[in-house]
Amino acid sequence: MNMDIATVNALPYEDFVNILGNVVEKCPIITAAVWSRRPFVNLTALETAISEFIDALPESGKEGILRCHPDLAGRDLQSGTLTRESREEQAGSGMDALNSAEASRMARLNEEYKERFGFPFVICARMNDKANILRQLSERCPNERAVERARGIEEVKKICRLRLQDLVLIDAPNKL
Amino acid sequence: MNMDIATVNALPYEDFVNILGNVVEKCPIITAAVWSRRPFVNLTALETAISEFIDALPESGKEGILRCHPDLAGRDLQSGTLTRESREEQAGSGMDALNSAEASRMARLNEEYKERFGFPFVICARMNDKANILRQLSERCPNERAVERARGIEEVKKICRLRLQDLVLIDAPNKL
Repeated sequence: MNMDIATVNALPYEDFVNILGNVVEKCPIITAAVWSRRPFVNLTALETAISEFIDALPESGKEGILRCHPDLAGRDLQSGTLTRESREEQAGSGMDALNSAEASRMARLNEEYKERFGFPFVICARMNDKANILRQLSERCPNERAVERARGIEEVKKICRLRLQDLVLIDAPNKL
Repeated sequence: MNMDIATVNALPYEDFVNILGNVVEKCPIITAAVWSRRPFVNLTALETAISEFIDALPESGKEGILRCHPDLAGRDLQSGTLTRESREEQAGSGMDALNSAEASRMARLNEEYKERFGFPFVICARMNDKANILRQLSERCPNERAVERARGIEEVKKICRLRLQDLVLIDAPNKL
């Protein structure tokens, strides 16, 4: 049921933002901004436009993007206030089924990370399982702030790519 | 019940974004970004930080902000999907109580505006009444795109200022 790129290009901005507005978590402004750059020749071009918009933001804006992300296995998961996309992604990587020791460890490391950096640990949950997420969170905590900001944004782009692929047809390689 | 600026400055980013995240409609990234610039000496400094962040965005980003705004007396008002802030603002200026002729005129002008500019007509509803909004919408339709983009952003800042004043204490002029 994914749209082809011609359908995407023909969408009025309201529909474009309604459908694609959460490919970067809680940042519909980004989707809404790249609508100005349509038509897109393919999905990759749309993804690139989003990526370039993010890269052109000041560092505070990149941190702003990270701060719009929920904790993994955090408050929003417990209270049912995750976005649909985040809920599915966190469930897929087992974040909703941590045992008690894992949950404690995750909560402690999330707090440590946020305290140190002033933004949450962001990782593409669909490309990682539970053990891997816990390991990376632990390993990334001692990093420098600028390193983690850049790393978090890389992960935002991976999440964005997978969300886009759920909505828009991937370029047909042999299409004439 | 408004917070003083010291309380605002002491908020962790999650609370800061939860409380202030919609001072620019559906753009929590902006609030989340300016958290990096705390502490703020007063409400004006916070408002200025938001304003400067907006001004530093590329033109597409400014259009993105405008596209995150609902139509006045539009689909979201009819379907009850406005944000709380927008609902109150639109109701306050009479947008939820248009007679049939006014509603038709508003709908027609909104469509004309969006068709021409690729973003919605944005105006600070709390500073205008029904008649004034309809008049300005009609008068602004023939403008140039760049003029309307800048004008819309000015209105976004007025809306933001009033939303901030609902949450944060205005600087006490004689405070020692």
